This record gives sequence, C-alpha cells and structure tokens, in this order.
Amino acid sequence: MSAAPAPIRVAVVGAGYWGPNLARNFKSCSDFQLTAICDLDLARAQRVAEPLGNVAAITSLPALLASDIEAIAVATPAQTHHGIAMEALRMGKHVLVEKPLADSLDKASQMVDEAALSSLVLMTDHTYCYTPAVAKIRELVIGGHLGDLLFIDCTRINLGLVQPDVDVFWDLAPHDLSILDFILPDGLHPVRVSAHGADPLGTGKSCIGHLMMPLPNGVMAHVQVNWLSPTKTRQVVVGGSEKTLVWDDLNPQQRLSIYDRGVRLNEGAVVAGDAQRTAAQVSYRLGDTWSPALPEREALADMVTEFAAAIRGRRRALTDGSAGLRVLSVLEAASRSLRNFGRMERPESSSHLLKGRL
Amino acid sequence: MSAAPAPIRVAVVGAGYWGPNLARNFKSCSDFQLTAICDLDLARAQRVAEPLGNVAAITSLPALLASDIEAIAVATPAQTHHGIAMEALRMGKHVLVEKPLADSLDKASQMVDEAALSSLVLMTDHTYCYTPAVAKIRELVIGGHLGDLLFIDCTRINLGLVQPDVDVFWDLAPHDLSILDFILPDGLHPVRVSAHGADPLGTGKSCIGHLMMPLPNGVMAHVQVNWLSPTKTRQVVVGGSEKTLVWDDLNPQQRLSIYDRGVRLNEGAVVAGDAQRTAAQVSYRLGDTWSPALPEREALADMVTEFAAAIRGRRRALTDGSAGLRVLSVLEAASRSLRNFGRMERPESSSHLLKGRL
Amino acid sequence: MSAAPAPIRVAVVGAGYWGPNLARNFKSCSDFQLTAICDLDLARAQRVAEPLGNVAAITSLPALLASDIEAIAVATPAQTHHGIAMEALRMGKHVLVEKPLADSLDKASQMVDEAALSSLVLMTDHTYCYTPAVAKIRELVIGGHLGDLLFIDCTRINLGLVQPDVDVFWDLAPHDLSILDFILPDGLHPVRVSAHGADPLGTGKSCIGHLMMPLPNGVMAHVQVNWLSPTKTRQVVVGGSEKTLVWDDLNPQQRLSIYDRGVRLNEGAVVAGDAQRTAAQVSYRLGDTWSPALPEREALADMVTEFAAAIRGRRRALTDGSAGLRVLSVLEAASRSLRNFGRMERPESSSHLLKGRL
Amino acid sequence: MSAAPAPIRVAVVGAGYWGPNLARNFKSCSDFQLTAICDLDLARAQRVAEPLGNVAAITSLPALLASDIEAIAVATPAQTHHGIAMEALRMGKHVLVEKPLADSLDKASQMVDEAALSSLVLMTDHTYCYTPAVAKIRELVIGGHLGDLLFIDCTRINLGLVQPDVDVFWDLAPHDLSILDFILPDGLHPVRVSAHGADPLGTGKSCIGHLMMPLPNGVMAHVQVNWLSPTKTRQVVVGGSEKTLVWDDLNPQQRLSIYDRGVRLNEGAVVAGDAQRTAAQVSYRLGDTWSPALPEREALADMVTEFAAAIRGRRRALTDGSAGLRVLSVLEAASRSLRNFGRMERPESSSHLLKGRL
Repeated sequence: MSAAPAPIRVAVVGAGYWGPNLARNFKSCSDFQLTAICDLDLARAQRVAEPLGNVAAITSLPALLASDIEAIAVATPAQTHHGIAMEALRMGKHVLVEKPLADSLDKASQMVDEAALSSLVLMTDHTYCYTPAVAKIRELVIGGHLGDLLFIDCTRINLGLVQPDVDVFWDLAPHDLSILDFILPDGLHPVRVSAHGADPLGTGKSCIGHLMMPLPNGVMAHVQVNWLSPTKTRQVVVGGSEKTLVWDDLNPQQRLSIYDRGVRLNEGAVVAGDAQRTAAQVSYRLGDTWSPALPEREALADMVTEFAAAIRGRRRALTDGSAGLRVLSVLEAASRSLRNFGRMERPESSSHLLKGRL
Repeated sequence: MSAAPAPIRVAVVGAGYWGPNLARNFKSCSDFQLTAICDLDLARAQRVAEPLGNVAAITSLPALLASDIEAIAVATPAQTHHGIAMEALRMGKHVLVEKPLADSLDKASQMVDEAALSSLVLMTDHTYCYTPAVAKIRELVIGGHLGDLLFIDCTRINLGLVQPDVDVFWDLAPHDLSILDFILPDGLHPVRVSAHGADPLGTGKSCIGHLMMPLPNGVMAHVQVNWLSPTKTRQVVVGGSEKTLVWDDLNPQQRLSIYDRGVRLNEGAVVAGDAQRTAAQVSYRLGDTWSPALPEREALADMVTEFAAAIRGRRRALTDGSAGLRVLSVLEAASRSLRNFGRMERPESSSHLLKGRL
Repeated sequence: MSAAPAPIRVAVVGAGYWGPNLARNFKSCSDFQLTAICDLDLARAQRVAEPLGNVAAITSLPALLASDIEAIAVATPAQTHHGIAMEALRMGKHVLVEKPLADSLDKASQMVDEAALSSLVLMTDHTYCYTPAVAKIRELVIGGHLGDLLFIDCTRINLGLVQPDVDVFWDLAPHDLSILDFILPDGLHPVRVSAHGADPLGTGKSCIGHLMMPLPNGVMAHVQVNWLSPTKTRQVVVGGSEKTLVWDDLNPQQRLSIYDRGVRLNEGAVVAGDAQRTAAQVSYRLGDTWSPALPEREALADMVTEFAAAIRGRRRALTDGSAGLRVLSVLEAASRSLRNFGRMERPESSSHLLKGRL
Repeated sequence: MSAAPAPIRVAVVGAGYWGPNLARNFKSCSDFQLTAICDLDLARAQRVAEPLGNVAAITSLPALLASDIEAIAVATPAQTHHGIAMEALRMGKHVLVEKPLADSLDKASQMVDEAALSSLVLMTDHTYCYTPAVAKIRELVIGGHLGDLLFIDCTRINLGLVQPDVDVFWDLAPHDLSILDFILPDGLHPVRVSAHGADPLGTGKSCIGHLMMPLPNGVMAHVQVNWLSPTKTRQVVVGGSEKTLVWDDLNPQQRLSIYDRGVRLNEGAVVAGDAQRTAAQVSYRLGDTWSPALPEREALADMVTEFAAAIRGRRRALTDGSAGLRVLSVLEAASRSLRNFGRMERPESSSHLLKGRL
C-alpha cells in the first residue's frame, strides 16, 4: 500500500472576486497545500489569506515564482493572464487560469504552446463543466444516448451588470461555449459563427446577443445572452434523434429532464425530383421522461481536484488550454461577425484547437 | 331604435382543413348569413355544408361569384389565393383570405391594389391576433405601458409535420410575424432580416429556423421555429424599458405575466472617450408581477366579427391585406437570407406596407 | 378464424348532462349497437338520438325493458338509480350506472344482490378509473413498484357550483374514492373515516371538506375537496417505501411523476425503553425521477369497452357494483362523522364490499 | 438631534444549532452589543464566540446573569427554556426564547406571568414571521384585502429527520401555527383542534400529521406535516371572499400570488324550506393575479431588530410570549386529540392567550 503523495504546493494570484473562491477550495482539498495569496494590494491579499490560516499574503509575483511552489491559479483581469501565465510556465509552474484564458486568441495560443513545450499543465477554469448537471449531460451526449445531435439551444438571460469593458457576448457566452465544448465529443468546432447584437439603451455595446453556430452534420447551435431581461433563464436544450435533454438550472426540483422521444427520417422519403414526396417524411416516437438524480457537489471542488489529477497524471486537464482556445476562437469570430452585421465568419483554426484525448 | 342590419351573405371557398372552422363561425355569427360551401370536390363540400343546415354545396366558383353573395372566405391552397381573390374582388365581393395572403409578395400586392381600387375589404385571417392574450398584449404595447421596447423573443417549437412544400419558416413563422405585426404600433417593419436554418435529418428543407430582425430604435426581434423539438413551447416575450411581458400559451393557469421591472441607462453614464465609464451604466427597478385575467373567447369568432365590422364600417380590417403583405415581405426576405447563408436582407418596401389607421 | 360476435344491443336511460357522452361512446364502439335513448322528456331524448342516426328516442322505460335490448346505461338523477336498475336487472338486462351507484348504501346493496342472483353485470361508471394516468397508477401500486404504501393525498379544489342537493363531499369526493378503490389491491377499506367540513359562506352545507381515512397497516389517506378555491388543483400523491408517485392532472407536459426515493426504518432503531434512540431512525435513498408516457385515449371509450368485455366474459367489471358500494360506504361514514363533529366512524362492512377477483 | 442610544448588552445562551445564527445577527445589529456566548461546553461556546471578535465564551449561567447584560437569547433544548428564562427574568433581563417557548403550556404561562410582573420583554423567536413574504401576508390579511376569510391550508412536507423526542406535529407544525398566529388579526384561536397522525414505518410516533382547526366564523384551517414525503412542499393558501393568496416558498420566481377572485353567497339564495333553492347559490368573480415584489432580507435580522425595538419601546414584541403560548396551546390540544383518535379538543384558554395590541 503506497503512502499518499505529498500535497501540491499552490498559490492563488489575484485576490479580487474569484480568487477567494479558488483559495477556499485549494485549502479544503487534500491534494493541495495552499501556500500564498498574491495581489498587488497587500491588504486585499491579507483579507483572503488570514482566515485560511498558514497562508502567506504577498505582493511580488517574481518572488512567488522563485519559490518552491509547483502551481499557480490566476484570477486577475483578463488582460494580465498572458503575462502572468507565460512567466509562470517559463519558471516550470503548472497554471490554472480563470476564464477567458486570455484577452486574445493569439496570446492564448502562445500560452498553450509554452505549456506543451514544457510539459506543464495549463488548465482553464471552466467552472460550469464541473457541475453535476453538466457532467451528466456530457456522459449522455458522448455516450451516444441522445442519438445523432439535431440542435442545441442555450439561454442565459436576466438583469445583469452592463460591464464597462466587454459586451454581453464576452461576459456571458463563455459559460455556454465552455459547456458546449465540454459536452461535444470533439469539442466546439462550429463551421461558421454569426453574431447578432442589439443595444437598445445606447450603452455603446451589445446588451442583447444571439450566436448562430452551424456545427458539422447540419446541427444548429444557438446561444442567447441578454443583460436586460427582467426574467431569468438558465437553460440548455440538446436535441437528438433518439432523446432530447433539457437542463433548467433554476428548477432545483427537476434540474435535468431527458425526453425519450425520437425523430427519424423515413426511408425513401426524400427522392430527388420526386413528385410523390409526402408530408410524412419524418416520424416520431414518444416515450417516457426521465430526470436523473444529481449529487450535491460544489463544482469548484471538483475543478480543483481535476487540476491535481492532471498534474499528477501528467496529462491534459478535462478543460485544458485548448478548451480555452476554442472558446476564444468562437468569441473572436463572433466579434468579427458583429462588426460585419451578422455575416457568417469561420472561426480561426489551428492544431491547438484539437481536443486532446484523455 | 334602428333595426338590425341585414346579415352579410357570405360563402366559404375550400372545404379542406380550415374551411369547416370558418364555416362554423360564420354560421354562428349573427352578422353573416352563410349561403354556400364551394369546393372542387362536391362530396367534401357537402360534408361541411350539410350539418350546418340551409347551406348549399357547390363546385363552381364562377357561379358562386355570379350570385348575390357579398363576401367570400378563401381557405384553399396558398397558390390559388391570388386567382380566387382577384376574381372575387373584380366581381365586387369582399374577401377574407387564410394566411398566407398569397404565395408571393408580388401577387399579394396586386390583391391589395385591386381591393383598394374597388373600395372592398381584403382581410387576412391572422387568427392568433384575435385571441384574448394577443389583444391584451397589443393594448399594453400600443398603449405604451411597457415603455420603450428593447427586445422581442418568439419561440414556437414542438414535434411537427415536416411539410412537403414549405420549410419551417413558411409553416410556423407566419403566426409569430402576424402577431408582431399586430402588436407593434406601426406594424412589422424590420430594418433587416437574417435567417438561419438547419436540416440535420436531410429532408431537403429547413426543419429548424431562427429569424433575427433588428427593428427601428435598436430593438432586436428573434423568432425561433422548430419541427424537431420533442418539448413544446409557445412563448412570446416582449421586453420594455418599464415592463416586460411573457405570454406562455401552454400555461392556462397564468397565460400572460407582466413584470413591472424597469431598465434605464443612467444619465451621463456614457461619454465618448470617458475613462471613468463604470459598470453601473444601467440601473434596474424591481416591482410586482401582474397577470391579467383573460376572457375565454374563440379567436375565430372575433375574427369573423371583425370582418363584418370592416365591411359595414367601410374601413380596413385590423388584419387587413397590408398586414398579410408585411408578413410575406419578411418571409421572402428570410428566404433570400437563407439562400445567402444568413446575410442580412432588407425586406422589400412599398406604400402598400404602411399600416392603415383605423 | 371466428367471426366477430354480434354487437350488444344497448340503450341509454337519461338524456341530461352525462347521457349524451355515454351515447356517443356506445355509438362509436363496435362492441355495441346503440338502439335507443330513453327520457321522460321526448324532445330531450330526440336531441341526443337524432344526430347519432338510427337511434330511437323513447319515453317509456317499461317498453324499453320489454324490448330485445341486452343492456342499459343509467344516467338519471341518483335517487332514481335504484328503481331503474332493479327493474332492468329483473328483466335480465345488464346495467351500467352513473356514479354514485345509488343514493344510499342500502339500496345499492340490493342492486348488487340482484345482479349476483341473476348473473348479470352491474357496473359503476367510475370514469376516472379508465384514464391512462389512473391505469398506470394502478399498475404501479398493484405491481408493488412503490413498495409498502405510506400515505395517499388527494386534492380536488377549484371554484365549483354549490350543488342544491349534496354537499362538497358527495359531489367531489366520489371521484377520489373511486380512484383509491381502483388502485388499492383489495379496494378501499378504511379502518375509520373522519370528515371535517366548513361552510364559511353559510350556504347550509359543507363547501370545504377533508376526509381522514386511516387504512390498514398505518397508511394515512387524506382527501381534500373544496368548492370555494379560486386556484384549481387536481392532484393525487401516493407515497411508498420505495417510490412516490405524483399525478398532477393539470400538467399535460408531465402528468405523472414517479420519484425513486425510498424511506426505510433502520433496523434496531426502535427498541422499547432504549435511551440510545437516535434521530437517525429513518434513512432515505434519493434516486431518479421518471415520468411515463401516457397514451391519449378517451376514458369513456375504455369504460364502455370494459362493460362489453364484462358482459361477454361473464365476469365482474373492473369497476363493478361492489366498487360503487365501497365508495358509498365511505361517503355514508363521512356523513355520520360530519354530524358527530369529525368523530372517527367505522364504515359499514359486508361481504358485498369485497373486491372481486377478475 | 438626539444621540443614538447605547447598544443593548446581550448574550446568547446555547451554542448548538441555532445559537450561532442568533449570535451572528446580534453581532451585526447596531442596536445590540453581543457580550457573551454561554454554553455548558466551553469549547463549543468558543467556536461560536471567537470568529465574532470581542465576545466572551463562558459556561456559568449564574455568572452571566449577575453581569451587567440587559438581555439574553435562549437557544437551548426546549426542556431547559423555562428554567433559564425564569431565572433571567427574575434577574431583570429581557428574554428571547427559541421556539417552542417551553415544553408545556403550564411552564410557558409562568414565564409570561413573570415577564408581565417585571415589565420585561419576553419574546418568542418565531423566525418565519419576519420573512418578507409573511410580513406581506399579514399586511394583506389584517388590512382586510382578502375580504372575509374562508379557509387556510398549510403544507410542510419533505423527507425529514425523524426526531428522537418529538413527533412530526411538534417538530414542523409550530412553524405554520406561529405564521397563522401572526397573520390573523386576533391571533390563532381555533374553536377546536383535531389531529390525525400516522406512523406507517412503526417508529413509535407520528411521522405524518394533519391538524384540522375550525376557526371562528366557519373558517377551516388545515395544517399538513410529513417527514416521509420525497417531494418537498412549503405552501400556505389563504382563501378569502375577495381574494385568495398562495405562498409557495420554493418558487423564488413567484413566491407570493394573490388571485383577485371573489366568492359570494347570492342574496336570498338560501331560504329555509325553499323548494326553489337552486345551484346558483354562490357566484364567482374572476380577476387578475398579482405577485408583489418582496425585498430580499434575512428574517433573523428583522427578528433581532424587533427584539431591540420592543425593549426600547417598553412594549410587547410582535411575537411575544403570548404568541408562543397560543402555539403551545394548540400543540397540546393536538396531542390530546391524537391520544383520543382525532376527537375534537378545545384548546386551553386563558387571558394570557389574548393577542396584545401593539
């Protein structure tokens, strides 16, 4: 019987909104030893570090990287992700980065390259992917239980803070894009991206947005985001030829419903030039509805555990750097489409964007 | 005290799916005297006419139009609407036409012209506009109770018959487009139309569709239609700066909800080049929710009554020919957009498309 | 291959509210030949008979019973059920009776005796028992899928007509009692019945009512009925040790839900005089939720088919006379309890009340 | 402008489940200075006191009461409430007691007497009464907005811990009884109480319970509690002649709904011996549904503030000792009824039970 491995020495960089959540979860995870909170503002770092006990509060990133820590988690503003992560990777540290991975696809690609070169783990904190509901959805989609995919609809709307620096696409859509990337067998690779935004209040940026993303095999993915809706919806629908799945995150009594209802093209129904083509091209099968019990677990705890497992197993994380890249590649295509009045744009493609096999 | 006016002599042309519904409502409306059902298939005409009592079943349209009837209702296939309606108008008959008004904008324009020339009523049977829910929505929107419009979302999805001759846009979207046209003060005049369709089963036509329609003043209208969804949704959301309205037609316990929740751009929040621009650009007001009681009435009965009122009042019907034109103009733009991979298309515009004042 | 048997010649007695529904279903059922509608008011009988075609309208019950019909369905006021049914049974006719079987347990017992003596089918029209939802509930309960029963809750409330001759218990509770009788393996045999009524408007009878019915094995059944509730609920909950079932008849999207959640007394948890008795006496198991697809069928059609099957199979109907007796026996006990301020009353018991094996 | 009054020096007695919540709220309320946590188990007291800063952890109640504190909050087991509260009152301290006020009506009465004699505040911590929803319900009921009350239905069911020392009535019903007491103008004074319990698992105590409580004027109040239900419901329905109110605590999107639907006995409808009595005795009016916006506030914070206001205003608290008495009086009547197989029992009555005017 082997002894438990020594905990991984980790530090959190950034003590703003998200950093304390990461710190709390590292602290309570036996795979890690949280050693420091690093922030330019010492008082802020201290407010996070002190209640945790035995965690240092520091302001110097170089000093931190020069220490014997093995990994850092970056929870600073998006523009600083690239600089901090690159430095850490060069110093041989594993890196977890809050979404978005970087503020441009280009910078994010450099980060992925650097991590690959050094055989270090670069992980994107796509927290939603670690909720029990999304884990179950992934299992069902990747396991083929829904049949062939037909359409995906994501809705994320409610009264939200109009962000000063990003539009509603960059603020809200990364959640849905990271989920789509996670549940699709090959990750999110839309054939094209078309974005339509609206700014009826005149804030200077889109407050309402729709992403239309044709996927391979004629599947249509649609993501709707809205900061101005007084009603709140958090919903993902995945329609398949065998079953359709609805995730309603605001209904704790029945968060996930799977409708065993099939849709099938009747054989011989479509013949080119066939005048006898009838209305009954498609037939339906109506079965039961099923709502799996989901465990009550904190997503962030599972995310942190996956970070440890990737480091120890010397493997890619479930939501690795390339997952972050794919999300950025869609967001950049969406921004281009927006500037071109909704024109269909092809997301940039590169070998970095391939989903790693685990 | 004046005597009640003599009932209007009316006939129904077409005894297929919709004709019998029209016939039944004409029969039970005291404004009309239903005299005949006309269909090329005599047996079919008889099956509709006989149970109603004192209604003739005939096969000759010319004979019908030569008789002393004053109005006809056309419930035949869309390709035949133009021919039948034009002949009837030339013979001085008022005409009600099942949606869509015609199978092309061009033909429909001729029909509107002919009716205007002859001072006859040309009405489109946009049945949904006569439901109590839509009547209430129109009252609220046109009365300004929602404040400035911000966005409109329509969802009409469920397992549906894949039609042999039309795609999902032409099959389902006319319902929503006719509703939008009805509730907007100036009718439906999108600045542009972008349509995205998907055909994941390979039926040869779109089975899933999204219409993106920027309206004047930065308002975004979105219509989602789907034949392949095993879950059924019939929903319209109208978001305004003062209130937001949700019509959920499948919830008889609370069909219409009005959220008294306002969204407002803070004054001085957006200044060009202002570095101090903060996240608090938009402020929210949260008030009560209100669900008006709706009368239980059959929409078709009210539609038929409006036809009579328009004829007697020598005025345009609430859903007149130009309403039908506006819907067709959007559908044609959508088809163009679809052929152009979602490109934004400008709907054809003409004086016919102006909403008449009643 | 045997020829189809000749249809059973049947007549409907009573052309008021329910009779036309029975007539329509007999007419469209190939097992029956509907020969006549009998009502003291000839015009009323004619209004029902004529649209059906080839059905006589008559006013004389003796003449009807003297004819060659084989069965009658009685849809007259409850006070007349006994007289009509007894006469019919004595003339050798099978009898279907609208609920309640009679206006007293005593009279109903005579009817059951008479039918048994003559080997004729006496069936109670407990329509709800033939809905797809109740059929599925029965299958699950009788099949033991819920485990041991723990509790049953029935709620039937909405704004209802205050009946002139019966209170809310006799008006609404028969529906729930007949359902309970149908789904319980041995039928409804409460150990005691306690009824609590309220008449806050001063109408002279209970408009709000609760039935408390301890069943064998410590199971508690509760039926709540209310004419004065502006919200409408039609719900039955059956709690078992393995699964719990909720039937929400007003939710067409998910009428029946089965919660795979178990409740179990921990072994050794309860020991007389045990000071160590802890809070963890009962443990829970949380599993999936499941909503079976239910066919769309008219209950009355299946009820009529069962009447034919019982006649042809020379067997008891699923809802036979003794089912009607059991419901009446509970209603009478409830009325006694009501007069005694909610005192627990033992329902009258007799061999008639035993559920027949089919 | 007067200076703010000095904060009231308060201590919390009992550091188990509820005490820490009270301590946290006293700490963050400017009306109080939390000086100590008192518990027989010093370590437990310390665990609560230390994170709060400047709060003593002590084990001696006499020492605490001998100090200069002005008030205590008692969060110890119910059997000890009487002893602790009596001692504190005799030492001139104001007392807040966790529900139930005591483990018997008799002891609770002594506490109320003692407080009255010494002009000290004795308050029961009926936390639910300080939720925004219950505050709004009270305003509507006491303001007469619902018209005459007709019925009240409370449902509090879900999988719950089977308590070692109390049955489901004493565990769950106090919540509903305290709410009813709070929203009724004169407090909860049922004419009679009938309790029906069930123990289908054989735990030795009721796990399922129904309280039937006829109130004055023919109003029926019903409380349903259940530890064995895998579905969770927290609902209160208050039916009135003008409006009906539904509080669904598990629906954050629409917690409170008010149905503007009236029920009225038609004049002259009920005449003794009147043969013409018809079904239309009662008429209905159907109006809108309304869901008031509720503030997001922690109930316990408002409860603590009310304790301060009562002390400073030298007045009874909204949920004073007599409120606790009334709840106990119903619970004791329920226990008697349970022993007598559901017999209607009259709750003990005394002048203590009168609701104080504030």
